[in-house]
Amino acid sequence: MADETNLEVRLKRRPGGVPVAEDFDVVEGPVPVPGAGDMLCRARYLSLDPYMRGQISGRHLSGAVEVGDLMRGEVISDVVTSNAGRFDVGDRIAFRGHWQSWQVTDGAEARLVDPAIDPPSLALGILGMPGLTAYAGFLHLAEPKAGDVVVVSAASGPVGSMVGQIARIKGCRVVGIAGGPEKCRWVTEEAGFDACIDYKAEELGPAIERECPNGVDIYFDNVGGDVLDAVMWRLALGARVVLCGLMAQYNTDEIPPGPNPATIIKARATVRGLVVYDHEDKRADFTRDALAWLAAGKLHYREDVTEGLENAPAAFARLMAGRNFGKMVVKI
Amino acid sequence: MADETNLEVRLKRRPGGVPVAEDFDVVEGPVPVPGAGDMLCRARYLSLDPYMRGQISGRHLSGAVEVGDLMRGEVISDVVTSNAGRFDVGDRIAFRGHWQSWQVTDGAEARLVDPAIDPPSLALGILGMPGLTAYAGFLHLAEPKAGDVVVVSAASGPVGSMVGQIARIKGCRVVGIAGGPEKCRWVTEEAGFDACIDYKAEELGPAIERECPNGVDIYFDNVGGDVLDAVMWRLALGARVVLCGLMAQYNTDEIPPGPNPATIIKARATVRGLVVYDHEDKRADFTRDALAWLAAGKLHYREDVTEGLENAPAAFARLMAGRNFGKMVVKI
Repeated sequence: MADETNLEVRLKRRPGGVPVAEDFDVVEGPVPVPGAGDMLCRARYLSLDPYMRGQISGRHLSGAVEVGDLMRGEVISDVVTSNAGRFDVGDRIAFRGHWQSWQVTDGAEARLVDPAIDPPSLALGILGMPGLTAYAGFLHLAEPKAGDVVVVSAASGPVGSMVGQIARIKGCRVVGIAGGPEKCRWVTEEAGFDACIDYKAEELGPAIERECPNGVDIYFDNVGGDVLDAVMWRLALGARVVLCGLMAQYNTDEIPPGPNPATIIKARATVRGLVVYDHEDKRADFTRDALAWLAAGKLHYREDVTEGLENAPAAFARLMAGRNFGKMVVKI
Repeated sequence: MADETNLEVRLKRRPGGVPVAEDFDVVEGPVPVPGAGDMLCRARYLSLDPYMRGQISGRHLSGAVEVGDLMRGEVISDVVTSNAGRFDVGDRIAFRGHWQSWQVTDGAEARLVDPAIDPPSLALGILGMPGLTAYAGFLHLAEPKAGDVVVVSAASGPVGSMVGQIARIKGCRVVGIAGGPEKCRWVTEEAGFDACIDYKAEELGPAIERECPNGVDIYFDNVGGDVLDAVMWRLALGARVVLCGLMAQYNTDEIPPGPNPATIIKARATVRGLVVYDHEDKRADFTRDALAWLAAGKLHYREDVTEGLENAPAAFARLMAGRNFGKMVVKI
C-alpha cells in the first residue's frame, strides 16, 4: 500500500455546548487488517452531519460514541483488498464507517457509488443520506400536492435545499428560512426557491405571514426551537409538518420545550417524525429520480469541502456552530 | 305558554384564571318571539363543556362571547311553536343555542333527538358532541388496530370514557389517566378500562412505564400540559397522538410550551389535531354504532347533573376547576 499510516479521529471528551476541535484526538495508527469476509478500503470522503452531535453526547438513537471511541460517519471509499464477495477491488462504495483514512467493512450495508457521479462526494449529499432524507420525508410524509405553500428551514443545507427543489419540481410554492444574505441569495437564485427569509435579519413571524399570507401547508423542519414555534402558529388548515432535525438543541444538554399543542389543534395539522433509517426501501426510487433531476439541471447543490482528515474536528465544530454553507464533507 | 319568563345567563366579565359564578349574570327577560322561519323551543338540558372557557376569553375558534353577550352552548329543547318546516311542534331537538330557558332557532343545524334516548341528556354526552369527538378522533385519526396500547387522559370525562370504551370494543388495551381514587375506580370498574393511573397520587412517568412497558401506541389527549409531556416521552415506535383538548391551559392567559419535538422524531410518531366540527359527516355512523353499543351494554357513562339554569354559572366554575365527575349537564 502506498500509504502505510492510518489517520483516525477519536472522541477525547464529551463537548459542553458547541464542540471545539480540542474535543477530539487525531492520532496515527497502523492500517487495519481485514479479516475473512472483510474488505480493506481507502477512504476518499467523509460526511459530517449534525446527528453526530447526538452520538457524542450519548443520546442519539443510532447509539453513543464513547470517550476514546473512533468517531463514526458515512464514508466514500475505494476497495483495496477484498476477502468478501460483495464488492470487487477498485469498486467505490459508501457505507457507515469511521473517521479514519483506512476503513474495514464486511460491506453488508454498503452501496456502490456510480463512478459517473462527479464529484463523488454528492453520494454523501444530495444523492446520499441527506438527499434520501429530503425525498422520503417530503414525498412520503408531507403528502404534497401542486400549489401547496411549503416552508423549509436550514434551506441552504443539504436536506433543506433538496426538499425545496423537490417541492418546486412538484409544483409547490417554496419559502426557505436561512441565516444571512449570502445563504438566502443562494437559496433563491441558485436553488430556485420562490423566497427565502433571513432569520438573522428580520422577525420570523411577520416574515412568514408576508410570504405565506394564507398560511403554511407544509413545513419541513430541520432546526426545532424558535423557528419551529414561529412556523407552527402560522399553519394553514390541514397542514402537514415533518420534524427532521433539531439543530437548535443539539449543542445543549437541556431539553427545551416545543410549540404549544394548540398550534396543531387549531390547524387540524398532522405532525410526523422522520428518521432516514426507516426509509431504505425508497433508496432505489430516490436514486433514479435524483440522478434524472440532476441530469436535467433541476438540482443545485452547495458543498463545503474541508481538505484532510486532520481538519475534520475543526470542520465539525464549524458545522455545529452553524458557520458552514452547504453540505459538509471532508476530502481525505 | 305556561312559563312566561325567560331565564338567561350572560357573561358579566372575562374571568381571570378559573371562572367563578360571579363572572356571569343570571337575568330574567321576556320570552323571545320567533320570526318567520324560526321555531320557539323550551330548553330541557344545557351542555357545559370546557371549550366555553375559550369562548369567554375571546380566543376559541368558534368565535368569542363578549361581555354582556348571552352564553352559548348546546341545548336539548322541545319545539313549542314552529314557523319553519324542518321540525314539528313537540319534536325534541338538539342544537347550538344559548344558556336560556327559551330558545329561538331556525333549526338549520339542529338534529332530532330520538325520544327513546333515556335520559335525553345522553344526546349531549356519549350520544352527542363528546361522543362524536371520541368516535371520529379515535377511529379516524388514531388508526387503531387490535392489540394497540391506548392511553387516554381525562378518562372519566365524556370524551375520555368514550374513547376508552370504543378502544376496548376494538380490541385495544386501554389505560386511563384521571384524578383521584373515585374517578379511577369508575374508569376501571364501570367503564371497563384495563387500568387507570391517578395522576394526583403518583408520578405519571413511572406509572405509564409500568402500565405500558412497551410504550404507548395511541395517546388521546384531552388535557395538554404536563400529562401530555409525560406521555409523549413514552410513545412506542409509530405511535399516533390525537390532540383534542387543553384543559391544562384553558384557565390561563399564558400560552405554555408543549413537548419537545424530539419525542415525535424518536417515535416516528404521527400527531394530529382534532376539532369535532370537522366530523359532522361521521355523525350518522356514530349514532348508529353508539346506540347499538349502548343497547348491548358496552357503553357506560357518568353524568354530573345540575338542576336549574340559575345554577349553571356555579356548575361551569366547578367544571373548569376540575371538580366535576362525568359529563356536566344542566337540567332546565
